[in-house]
Amino acid sequence: MEFKKLIEMIRQEVNEGLKNIPIPDYPKYLYDPIRYSITNNGKRFRPILAHLTGRANNIEPNDLMNISLAIELLHNFTLVHDDIMDNDTIRYRKKTIHEKWDSSTAILAGDGIYTIAQIILNKISKNFHSLSKYFNKTTLEICEGQALDKEFENDNTITRKMYLDMVDKKTGSLLGASAALPIIYNGGTDELVNTYEQFGRCLGKGFQIHDDLLEITTDSQTMGKSLGSDIIKGKQTIMVIMARDNFPSEWEELLHKSEQHTLLKNICSFFDKKGIIQETRSILNSYFNLSLDYLNKIDTIVTDDLVKLVKLIENRTY
Amino acid sequence: MEFKKLIEMIRQEVNEGLKNIPIPDYPKYLYDPIRYSITNNGKRFRPILAHLTGRANNIEPNDLMNISLAIELLHNFTLVHDDIMDNDTIRYRKKTIHEKWDSSTAILAGDGIYTIAQIILNKISKNFHSLSKYFNKTTLEICEGQALDKEFENDNTITRKMYLDMVDKKTGSLLGASAALPIIYNGGTDELVNTYEQFGRCLGKGFQIHDDLLEITTDSQTMGKSLGSDIIKGKQTIMVIMARDNFPSEWEELLHKSEQHTLLKNICSFFDKKGIIQETRSILNSYFNLSLDYLNKIDTIVTDDLVKLVKLIENRTY
Repeated sequence: MEFKKLIEMIRQEVNEGLKNIPIPDYPKYLYDPIRYSITNNGKRFRPILAHLTGRANNIEPNDLMNISLAIELLHNFTLVHDDIMDNDTIRYRKKTIHEKWDSSTAILAGDGIYTIAQIILNKISKNFHSLSKYFNKTTLEICEGQALDKEFENDNTITRKMYLDMVDKKTGSLLGASAALPIIYNGGTDELVNTYEQFGRCLGKGFQIHDDLLEITTDSQTMGKSLGSDIIKGKQTIMVIMARDNFPSEWEELLHKSEQHTLLKNICSFFDKKGIIQETRSILNSYFNLSLDYLNKIDTIVTDDLVKLVKLIENRTY
Repeated sequence: MEFKKLIEMIRQEVNEGLKNIPIPDYPKYLYDPIRYSITNNGKRFRPILAHLTGRANNIEPNDLMNISLAIELLHNFTLVHDDIMDNDTIRYRKKTIHEKWDSSTAILAGDGIYTIAQIILNKISKNFHSLSKYFNKTTLEICEGQALDKEFENDNTITRKMYLDMVDKKTGSLLGASAALPIIYNGGTDELVNTYEQFGRCLGKGFQIHDDLLEITTDSQTMGKSLGSDIIKGKQTIMVIMARDNFPSEWEELLHKSEQHTLLKNICSFFDKKGIIQETRSILNSYFNLSLDYLNKIDTIVTDDLVKLVKLIENRTY
């Protein structure tokens, strides 16, 4: 099967799986926003990564689907709560829960989605205890990543190393888990689990830095969310850190002299002119290459599809 | 040992257990409020109930402590998020997290506390899969209870039956779990687990209706939280439902004619004069008695301490 068709098939299966989760009708306060949120138009990269890893390792399809759904729901839960914390109003071309309903509804919906993620993981019997431990460790790391992201807001002393640590926790950990959980299910050695985890983490870091770049270079309709708001909110990205470190006075001037409606355009052309976009591309490519190096260490399976997935993610334009 | 001393000893052990959870120092954004919250002055009724049930059933002390801590942390997580949703500023004589920090901090702290609850439950090996399933089912039921509580706000069509269903989910389910989880750990039959659960649920319903009553009859300094605010926020309690059902016009008049600063006092004396306080006492006593009936069905252990706990909770004045 052509690779893109395979990816599309898995995405459809994951979407079907999400749609078929038996979400009760009542109480509507809890379940209406949950149903609204989990049937969003997410790209499903995390469950696709879990699926490709699991297929290459011949893991049982029902359990693989449950691992994948638990991962996607965990991701979804963090988005619902992050969107409240970050005041983001649009996600996947739809209003966020706190925007469509209110913050209280969104807090509770997030709690419910995470609990449903746990309940779906509970369906698995084989090596459940190890899966559960790893799943919870991952969640706490994502919380740490979000905490750092909030701490870093408007802090001009944040270094590239601190930023990369935050991205590793906030995004890398869950892509790491998506690759590692099927191996834990299979009873793989700690060393093998770690190799898959590192492969996923590097892919995740490349993915996130790429995302920051696309925020600047793509239009918001294509991305399906409000763009550039992160920089305006004082969020750290590797591009902001480079601009501040390498061109401190020019960067300061740009931020203070631009009017609101031209700021994003000015930032974008500044990043372009100063070679920051190019350097960012080279950094994110190095993470994608690092993830391929980890894949190369794995000699127990055919990793062709995982290599193709890295390429697909590397070449995405939105 | 005298029963009250036993309870105090267990409370201290639980508090020590909470204090000894290895909460990292960084990121401070996540862990400072978590540390602040889990070392609060809570009464620890839920872990005490789990401890007494577990002791009577001879379950392994370390695992019993982990079950108890997971229960208390689950409770704590729901309080942190409920306090945001309900705009409550004081809890256990301390500022709530969203009041001391802000809502974003409190959302993330709640997520972290619940994840730590899961991580502590993960420490248990024996019958872990069953414990985890039951724990997650309980969490989802608590979310449903909170959803109903929010739905019911300012809805004058809520019946006593709907209110009691809400209380059963919001409070009953976790006291049910506190009694049932040690039995699940022990590999008890479904029937035995169910008897313990029902015992805990009835105790929980008595406890919550009692709490609503104490909100009206005790001063806020003794209770350690802001009082009466629930009624003013339009929250349903069994007393409000009785007043509305039995004395509709007088109740309406009282709510609309009282000034803010005399409202709570007027409500209290209205409930007293109309026999609502007395009837509420009789309802909550019937739940405590029902919980004792369930205990009576258990002939595998000596239930004396659990009976004493019911009496202790029944007779609390704050």
